[in-house]
Amino acid sequence: MPVETIDRLAEALDGEAKRVSAEVDSFFSKLLAPSGDAREPLYEAMRHAAIGGGKRLRPLLTVAASQLFAIDRTRALRVGCAIEAIHVYSLIHDDLPCMDDAELRRGRATVHRAFGEAEAVLAGDSLHALAFEILAHPATHEDPWVRSDLVLELARASGPAGMAGGQMMDLAAEKQQLDLPAITRLQQLKTGALIEYSVEAACIMTKMPPEGRTAYRGYARNIGLAFQIADDLIDHSGDTLAAGKPTRKDADAGKATFVSLLGEERARQQASFLVAQAIEHLSGHGSEADLLRALARFAIERDH
Amino acid sequence: MPVETIDRLAEALDGEAKRVSAEVDSFFSKLLAPSGDAREPLYEAMRHAAIGGGKRLRPLLTVAASQLFAIDRTRALRVGCAIEAIHVYSLIHDDLPCMDDAELRRGRATVHRAFGEAEAVLAGDSLHALAFEILAHPATHEDPWVRSDLVLELARASGPAGMAGGQMMDLAAEKQQLDLPAITRLQQLKTGALIEYSVEAACIMTKMPPEGRTAYRGYARNIGLAFQIADDLIDHSGDTLAAGKPTRKDADAGKATFVSLLGEERARQQASFLVAQAIEHLSGHGSEADLLRALARFAIERDH
Repeated sequence: MPVETIDRLAEALDGEAKRVSAEVDSFFSKLLAPSGDAREPLYEAMRHAAIGGGKRLRPLLTVAASQLFAIDRTRALRVGCAIEAIHVYSLIHDDLPCMDDAELRRGRATVHRAFGEAEAVLAGDSLHALAFEILAHPATHEDPWVRSDLVLELARASGPAGMAGGQMMDLAAEKQQLDLPAITRLQQLKTGALIEYSVEAACIMTKMPPEGRTAYRGYARNIGLAFQIADDLIDHSGDTLAAGKPTRKDADAGKATFVSLLGEERARQQASFLVAQAIEHLSGHGSEADLLRALARFAIERDH
Repeated sequence: MPVETIDRLAEALDGEAKRVSAEVDSFFSKLLAPSGDAREPLYEAMRHAAIGGGKRLRPLLTVAASQLFAIDRTRALRVGCAIEAIHVYSLIHDDLPCMDDAELRRGRATVHRAFGEAEAVLAGDSLHALAFEILAHPATHEDPWVRSDLVLELARASGPAGMAGGQMMDLAAEKQQLDLPAITRLQQLKTGALIEYSVEAACIMTKMPPEGRTAYRGYARNIGLAFQIADDLIDHSGDTLAAGKPTRKDADAGKATFVSLLGEERARQQASFLVAQAIEHLSGHGSEADLLRALARFAIERDH
């Protein structure tokens, strides 16, 4: 690909990422407006966690995938924000003293450090419920089948068969050293399921039957793993600024990661291979898939 | 009402309560079957919390309200189990060391005492997601509008505008003494919203428009408050066996309750008044509402 094309794609991606970030912030600012009563600390904690941080990878994926099927941007964004609400709730709970006991998240104090532990549990639970409220609201899609399906698949992706199950596997990994297939399975549940849903949601909104979604799920599964390897590489490098959180946690805990199992060089190669595979899944599409291609290509090269 | 009629109703309620309890246990036993992999501690923790305990008030309400509209029992039970999943998740999180730090729940060890704190957070989160997965599944109702509406209203009832918001108010009450209107509002969110939903869900399943649901919501709101007063009376009495959990927690923490604000005698009178009001809301129905009437009449007279 000519250098000018690569530059143009990187620029387009950067512009779209900034736009989505601003739109997600605006959505959450309205959704989490001050309650004006004794619940306000809860709303403040949710705003602290949900507004003005993170790379918004999941909403960006949903918006980019929605462009494939010319889905209305407002709707794509609502779904993206529901996914982000799930992601943010999981970060709040992950950071709790009984889990990762983290001080820093997205470059600022974690919710339990800033607001208290009980407030952090409730802020996570509240964002969890709000995610489904957003999806089931008629503003998300005029077809109730679509709304119901969006809910069903998000619940699966985030529950014990998805994200929460992966977190349990991660807890269990503290007691037992995992091999490559086990780490892959853990990551496919812990972070992969929600990333996959971020793309599949666009297929649901365009009423594509499940059997037609294989390529899109394949794309998402490949970049999900690629992003995880990129995350492990950042963690391994010890670059706290790029990570926005303390690094080398896994290595210090003696936990296996893609980098510890493959070595840095092979981990990098594997990430590039996964990106190439992801892009291959989009071969049926023309320029309307450029944003998804750019996401795959550039997102592993920067912090996200 | 003649004594034999009262006896007959009490017996019918008792039979139905036992039947619903067995059906809820059976539903959760299938839903939470052993995972056969590293997630098993999570499933074990969920089974510990969700199977074989509690009075199943909420599913019983949904089943009883569904009888008003001749709704298929299997469907009513699925919805009741989704509500119970939300209730159980909230109990698990409420019992955490950073919240109530409880040792005992439904007469046995709390989840974090039996399985660890991180596992308890994840077990609650998993049941939370499963509740929405149950509702959005086509087996719950053939009409996707109904499924989508069931999800929307449950998310509202359990999120920051409902249960989680009420829990935040409860946290805030540790710092500030509440008066009767404030306690009433707190309880309407913390426990009332989910109880109200348990009845409203039947209205949604029968496709009743929101403006037709006033009487049913009124019934539910009245018994929700009556149950809370009954709970406060049990807590006040210090009867740990009836409560299935440590008692006099609120009094010892200096927190206001209906009993501390009204006194025991007036609290009892208020509960009876609320029950009479609840039954009045059912005046448009014949014998098909007897189970709901019995629920209102007897449930405040026993542990629940």
